[in-house]
Amino acid sequence: MNIDLNSDLGESLGAWRMGDDDAMLDIVSSANVACGFHAGDPAGILQTLRRAKAKGVVVGAHVSYPDLVGFGRRAMDVASADLRADVIYQIGALKGLAAAAGTVVRYVKPHGALYNTIAHDERQANDVIAAIREIDAGLSLVALAGSPLLGWARAQGLRVVAEAFADRAYMPDGSLVSRRQAGAVLHDPQEVAERMLRLAKEGVVTAIDGSTVRIQADSICVHGDSPGAVEMARQVRLLLEGAGVVVRSFAGTADADQGA
Amino acid sequence: MNIDLNSDLGESLGAWRMGDDDAMLDIVSSANVACGFHAGDPAGILQTLRRAKAKGVVVGAHVSYPDLVGFGRRAMDVASADLRADVIYQIGALKGLAAAAGTVVRYVKPHGALYNTIAHDERQANDVIAAIREIDAGLSLVALAGSPLLGWARAQGLRVVAEAFADRAYMPDGSLVSRRQAGAVLHDPQEVAERMLRLAKEGVVTAIDGSTVRIQADSICVHGDSPGAVEMARQVRLLLEGAGVVVRSFAGTADADQGA
Amino acid sequence: MNIDLNSDLGESLGAWRMGDDDAMLDIVSSANVACGFHAGDPAGILQTLRRAKAKGVVVGAHVSYPDLVGFGRRAMDVASADLRADVIYQIGALKGLAAAAGTVVRYVKPHGALYNTIAHDERQANDVIAAIREIDAGLSLVALAGSPLLGWARAQGLRVVAEAFADRAYMPDGSLVSRRQAGAVLHDPQEVAERMLRLAKEGVVTAIDGSTVRIQADSICVHGDSPGAVEMARQVRLLLEGAGVVVRSFAGTADADQGA
Amino acid sequence: MNIDLNSDLGESLGAWRMGDDDAMLDIVSSANVACGFHAGDPAGILQTLRRAKAKGVVVGAHVSYPDLVGFGRRAMDVASADLRADVIYQIGALKGLAAAAGTVVRYVKPHGALYNTIAHDERQANDVIAAIREIDAGLSLVALAGSPLLGWARAQGLRVVAEAFADRAYMPDGSLVSRRQAGAVLHDPQEVAERMLRLAKEGVVTAIDGSTVRIQADSICVHGDSPGAVEMARQVRLLLEGAGVVVRSFAGTADADQGA
Repeated sequence: MNIDLNSDLGESLGAWRMGDDDAMLDIVSSANVACGFHAGDPAGILQTLRRAKAKGVVVGAHVSYPDLVGFGRRAMDVASADLRADVIYQIGALKGLAAAAGTVVRYVKPHGALYNTIAHDERQANDVIAAIREIDAGLSLVALAGSPLLGWARAQGLRVVAEAFADRAYMPDGSLVSRRQAGAVLHDPQEVAERMLRLAKEGVVTAIDGSTVRIQADSICVHGDSPGAVEMARQVRLLLEGAGVVVRSFAGTADADQGA
Repeated sequence: MNIDLNSDLGESLGAWRMGDDDAMLDIVSSANVACGFHAGDPAGILQTLRRAKAKGVVVGAHVSYPDLVGFGRRAMDVASADLRADVIYQIGALKGLAAAAGTVVRYVKPHGALYNTIAHDERQANDVIAAIREIDAGLSLVALAGSPLLGWARAQGLRVVAEAFADRAYMPDGSLVSRRQAGAVLHDPQEVAERMLRLAKEGVVTAIDGSTVRIQADSICVHGDSPGAVEMARQVRLLLEGAGVVVRSFAGTADADQGA
Repeated sequence: MNIDLNSDLGESLGAWRMGDDDAMLDIVSSANVACGFHAGDPAGILQTLRRAKAKGVVVGAHVSYPDLVGFGRRAMDVASADLRADVIYQIGALKGLAAAAGTVVRYVKPHGALYNTIAHDERQANDVIAAIREIDAGLSLVALAGSPLLGWARAQGLRVVAEAFADRAYMPDGSLVSRRQAGAVLHDPQEVAERMLRLAKEGVVTAIDGSTVRIQADSICVHGDSPGAVEMARQVRLLLEGAGVVVRSFAGTADADQGA
Repeated sequence: MNIDLNSDLGESLGAWRMGDDDAMLDIVSSANVACGFHAGDPAGILQTLRRAKAKGVVVGAHVSYPDLVGFGRRAMDVASADLRADVIYQIGALKGLAAAAGTVVRYVKPHGALYNTIAHDERQANDVIAAIREIDAGLSLVALAGSPLLGWARAQGLRVVAEAFADRAYMPDGSLVSRRQAGAVLHDPQEVAERMLRLAKEGVVTAIDGSTVRIQADSICVHGDSPGAVEMARQVRLLLEGAGVVVRSFAGTADADQGA
């Protein structure tokens, strides 16, 4: 029994620090690395890639709308030609930096508003899917467990990876509780770890109404943007491993000379 | 007898047009394509790459300092870690878009202030050379004929391509006449074409003082930023071909499945 | 009888040219000057402001979402705190440049997607209204004739200016025909000029279905982004003046020492 | 006896935090507020201005080269027309946000590489001086104590404010010890505070070679970019006030309705 742990890294920008990449690279098996559109400057991204390589963590392209000030969290009505080329550009840039770091980009995980939009918006979803296929059809796509995006991407021949969120509450239908609703975000590391252990072993979580909901997920997203978040991620990993669940990437190894 | 003609393309940005890429792609054998740091947005760059592929024109990465408003023409004191990663990022992004267009990036030509700086500044030159080697040691580097950069890059194992400028006057020592000096830029298409023919056949040009100066160049840079510039470039190609000089890339073909 | 003619100016960016500001400043009475978020760099904006001052054209702030690559035409879900501060920042920057040019910003006209959004979206409309009031309650707001925005802004104490579009077709209810529909944009300069004359004199235009629709407009927007557009704008002015309609700003003069 | 304490504030950017503006606004009498070119987004800048207003701290425009990724610390060869307009744009933007916050921009302090360059480069210095005069000749200019810039600005009619750096070592000629040299930066809060007290009372500091050097300074720059830096700044203020030195702005009050 195994599962992947992923986290958003490489999000510092010039003189501005964000997150504790070193700590998180000891915890996760997959690093969603910023590509410069919502966060990350080339030198900082390269440093994160080198550390990921050194620690054997698989890297993916955390692509976004072009919006540094909004950190990619603002919905944008981007035309298809632009969205496709923007996604290709970001993946290409990360592939280049990854080559310099001796590693390889194995997957794509859209970020923020783009992630939320393409989970349900078929036009933008198809743009992202097409972009991935045009640059490298061997890249996996990480998407929200239960979202229509998974089916659309599979139908286009992409390998998809469904992900759950460690610190988020779920609705009885398997969707995330909106952040605007009370109880949407979980704060107790022990509770979170136990939920994720149950998810990994049984494929279910307890929904916000107490019911049990089935979540098919190959990867769990954990955060590292505060000391508390890092500690929660560590708890998740410890509990999983203590229970015999192997934490490893869905994409094989971080070695440049070996496929997934 | 053959020579390469190169030009700066892909320099439009969003709603802003620059140059006539279609016309120039019928004239040149190599397209220096902007990578987004001084010009070019991903969708526009991709369009230029697709047209270059369709017309069999070889493409290179026209890398720059990060300076859209200054069009990369302002000298910047960029630290080595940043400069190296910036160059890798740009080359990677262009490689990604080139893959989507079915073509391959064959060379790197630094742009504007970066071009001028690394022709003589060894620290920044070494940063660019290292960047190219880290992402793809098979890429050629296009540099100013006669500049120290050629030797530095060769010593590091890079294939270098020396270039001359069609519309620029030369000093008796083979350097360019400074743009601040009268007569630095040539405007007569016929004169320019004849100078380039002589350069291609005899390896010499007439310097600004009337002396003859030897210029070892494998490529000639022509401009396309005005109708007059396009016409001048066309004249250069016509005269070269009429005299039996084959215009072709130093880097072989634009086919993705074939090396240089 | 008088009316204002306004146009979007100052939209060049660094090395990229857009529009013919000099020609348009001989035609319009009000210049909507870009503020750097969708177009315009400080030096170019300052040059446009100096020319507007020299020609006695009143200037307004053409504020936008932060989106150079998309030219401010992409809808963005900007939070209120950001939108308000973004609008204040842009107006302030233009006021500073206007002071250096010896003129004064008299009004605000939102651009592109922001213009379209706040015509109907009350939350974002209120953000823009609040921003204007916080920096300078004496500024007028130019808005789409017939839109709810006019009422919202008036209720908050702003002076509003309703505008019509010279080259756009109208629906029988006074709204614009969507650009996705055939016939949305008019191309015949004579027809456009005659429509605008009728609008100025009778307050009506012929809708796309042939009916007559009342449009209460104090200003007419004309474009200058192509030679044809400049010529159309010139025709509008000539016909208006030939028929005795005075073309002048709703905001008095361009003199720095005099209010509206 | 009195002196000003100034610090760089408003340097957060979107999701990225920098410095502890709240803590520093309890310590300093003048806040150099970022204007968006090296740091600061409009909403964050506005928040800092509101807090400065609430705490009675005078605000100045911390203008910079356009370089977010390099945090304005990279020398750039900006042409005069651009530099002048860039400085006016930034001051104008900050004036607009200050008006919305109920305060007034009283001075200009160039940042980073621009600060260092214009201390000695007369061309760029004159561009900054001209920019200030064109937008508001009543603004003071904060510059390095002992630098030629002070004389150039005074000759153009600007009020100048000479500043010393609390945590920097000085050469016997009154210039700063280069950061590349050992001992350039001082780390002991008590030592730093005592040096600044002597500066305020006697107008001298001990140079790195042990000699005593005269420094004519009206303002002392303290940093707030780490908890240690905040504590050092607090020590400086406490020791100054304990010794009867009044900490107050060179520019009067933060009230919008009152001049300097």
